[in-house]
Amino acid sequence: MATQEIEKRGETGNNVEVERDSVHKEIAIVKMNRATGNKLSTDFMTELNTTLEKLENDDSCRGIILTSAIAGIFSLGLDGTEMYQKSLESTSAFWRSLQDFWMRLYGSKLATVAAINGHSPATGCQMAMSCDYRVMSEGPFGIGLPEVTVGLVAPFWFQEVMVKTCGERQTEMAVGLGTMFTPEEALKIGLVDEVVRPGDLISKAREQLLKWLKNPDRPRAMTKDMRRGPLLEKLRAQQEEDIATFNEYIHEKSVQESFGMSLESRKK
Amino acid sequence: MATQEIEKRGETGNNVEVERDSVHKEIAIVKMNRATGNKLSTDFMTELNTTLEKLENDDSCRGIILTSAIAGIFSLGLDGTEMYQKSLESTSAFWRSLQDFWMRLYGSKLATVAAINGHSPATGCQMAMSCDYRVMSEGPFGIGLPEVTVGLVAPFWFQEVMVKTCGERQTEMAVGLGTMFTPEEALKIGLVDEVVRPGDLISKAREQLLKWLKNPDRPRAMTKDMRRGPLLEKLRAQQEEDIATFNEYIHEKSVQESFGMSLESRKK
Amino acid sequence: MATQEIEKRGETGNNVEVERDSVHKEIAIVKMNRATGNKLSTDFMTELNTTLEKLENDDSCRGIILTSAIAGIFSLGLDGTEMYQKSLESTSAFWRSLQDFWMRLYGSKLATVAAINGHSPATGCQMAMSCDYRVMSEGPFGIGLPEVTVGLVAPFWFQEVMVKTCGERQTEMAVGLGTMFTPEEALKIGLVDEVVRPGDLISKAREQLLKWLKNPDRPRAMTKDMRRGPLLEKLRAQQEEDIATFNEYIHEKSVQESFGMSLESRKK
Repeated sequence: MATQEIEKRGETGNNVEVERDSVHKEIAIVKMNRATGNKLSTDFMTELNTTLEKLENDDSCRGIILTSAIAGIFSLGLDGTEMYQKSLESTSAFWRSLQDFWMRLYGSKLATVAAINGHSPATGCQMAMSCDYRVMSEGPFGIGLPEVTVGLVAPFWFQEVMVKTCGERQTEMAVGLGTMFTPEEALKIGLVDEVVRPGDLISKAREQLLKWLKNPDRPRAMTKDMRRGPLLEKLRAQQEEDIATFNEYIHEKSVQESFGMSLESRKK
Repeated sequence: MATQEIEKRGETGNNVEVERDSVHKEIAIVKMNRATGNKLSTDFMTELNTTLEKLENDDSCRGIILTSAIAGIFSLGLDGTEMYQKSLESTSAFWRSLQDFWMRLYGSKLATVAAINGHSPATGCQMAMSCDYRVMSEGPFGIGLPEVTVGLVAPFWFQEVMVKTCGERQTEMAVGLGTMFTPEEALKIGLVDEVVRPGDLISKAREQLLKWLKNPDRPRAMTKDMRRGPLLEKLRAQQEEDIATFNEYIHEKSVQESFGMSLESRKK
Repeated sequence: MATQEIEKRGETGNNVEVERDSVHKEIAIVKMNRATGNKLSTDFMTELNTTLEKLENDDSCRGIILTSAIAGIFSLGLDGTEMYQKSLESTSAFWRSLQDFWMRLYGSKLATVAAINGHSPATGCQMAMSCDYRVMSEGPFGIGLPEVTVGLVAPFWFQEVMVKTCGERQTEMAVGLGTMFTPEEALKIGLVDEVVRPGDLISKAREQLLKWLKNPDRPRAMTKDMRRGPLLEKLRAQQEEDIATFNEYIHEKSVQESFGMSLESRKK
């Protein structure tokens, strides 16, 4: 992608803050900061994608900590307004922005650590699972793939990332029941790697990231690609089909109605 | 399948008892009750298949508890008499009835909980593993895939269901050694999800089933299909080949002889 | 392969000692004993392959214990001198000898137990993981796939064997960080099955091997093949491609230079 186009895409939003670690300059801290509780809209995901792309193209950056600037919320997942009473063109662009952002994050040559500072349902959980390591803050927070509880189905690539993280049996139960796990429960099934005090979150994430950065970048990235490449290729090969599946389901009358009721009830 | 045909198939046996839960009418309790220790004959598996089919087609039913009416025995697995000195046609029908019953159970749109009240070797274990959740009674019972200990090989779809339940390494050891696990051991490796006092078996199974029934049926079934569909498709695509593999092995002279000796020794 | 050719290959080295267990004659104890710390050269791997082949063709042998005659070292992995300033022909033969030896070990119809008596990095770890069971000696030893730490990438078939042993998540971290595990850590993640006192190593390995030998050989080998055949077939289907991938990387100037420095530093 031409630099000009990247710059242009960067203009679409300013809901992502990037700062370099004061000591370890090769580490960028990427903070999501969208007023809605980091709900993922088309524009927000495009901005996140562009941010990662820039950091990957910047030789001075070797790893990132993905976190949120909003107290108690990592990300509340997809922005429901993007799926309610929208055109097919619009929902297609929405889903594609999710696919593209996810493929960049999951396959990033950068080392990536999620510092999960709060609630992390659905795509919030998927973002965290797609990093190389997960540190979560203690507290009254939930993480999981609860799609089924609101009448939706977690896409195959969400489910398969969870299988790679927690194993098949835990995933089957987690997505079948739509379980939201406490940090301690998430630790127990391997959904997160560490649970720490809120004040230690970033320092613990940095500590882990430095472990990944001990190794030379190229073989580390090649090794990561060997583990994650097949799933990335699988989605890439059926990206259009995956969009069609999403559209078909989301535009059903009954699904739209339940979305409408859900969005209404949250306004109250 | 036409209702008439279902009815006709239902006539073949009366070794399956179905009752509705007194409080939660959407739950059917399916009790296996065949005098042989619930050994699975062609007719018995056809009856079980038909029973499930009827319940799936009955909108008032949303979930089942699969258990046994025989004290201390869930199911002793395949009925060896169906494999001894039988025609190729007969053993083919036998194996097909197993495949068909299993595909229906493993892929059922109903939520399914196994209430394992006793011994559960081989296909007994496979039935339990193919439910959405497993509660097992404490007691001197064994569960596992011991095929190798009697000169047989657990079919790939038995082994792959165990991999999905317990992971690859536990499965490799379990099928390679033919281990029969105590309830406590089974719990430890994830082969069952819960071990309870015999008197609590059905109530605990019900409690778990109600968790699965909290979610709307359609997305729950779609989510289940996403996890289980690929293995079902794999068997469906090679169903005839799988029957041929079974026949080839089972009709070998040495295998028939060892069956004969085994059946003889049990008569004593 | 003709016996004559086996004999001829057997002549290439005498770094493998084979003795029969004094009580259980069906057990062969295979001891690696190459002065370099059992570093795996082309000739040494060919000798190991030939040794296994002979034992497989010997009806009096049913299982092996794979161990080392060198105190504190199981195997230090591939012999770096085979990859430094060598012809394409030479490195191709080297890699092929590794593939061929591994395919024989991983798919052996014999029951195989690794008695890991010391350090076991890289291909040392891969050999151990490719047995049916692993007993490791307590002590200041490391086991793991640290390729990434020296600028290399563990081949897909090393990684996939680790996935089958420890699961995807543990593998992703282990190969991404290049972790060398202590025996206790290895036990915790399932990389080894048992950690014992050094003096108990062989007796515990024998005890386990006898468990595998309780079952009839043929269904045991068929069951093993069902679990391991697909990965073996995958490598067999892309054996030449895998050699080309190895050659392409290993002959890069920067990789050769880092090999040179590494070999130099060890001389000091």
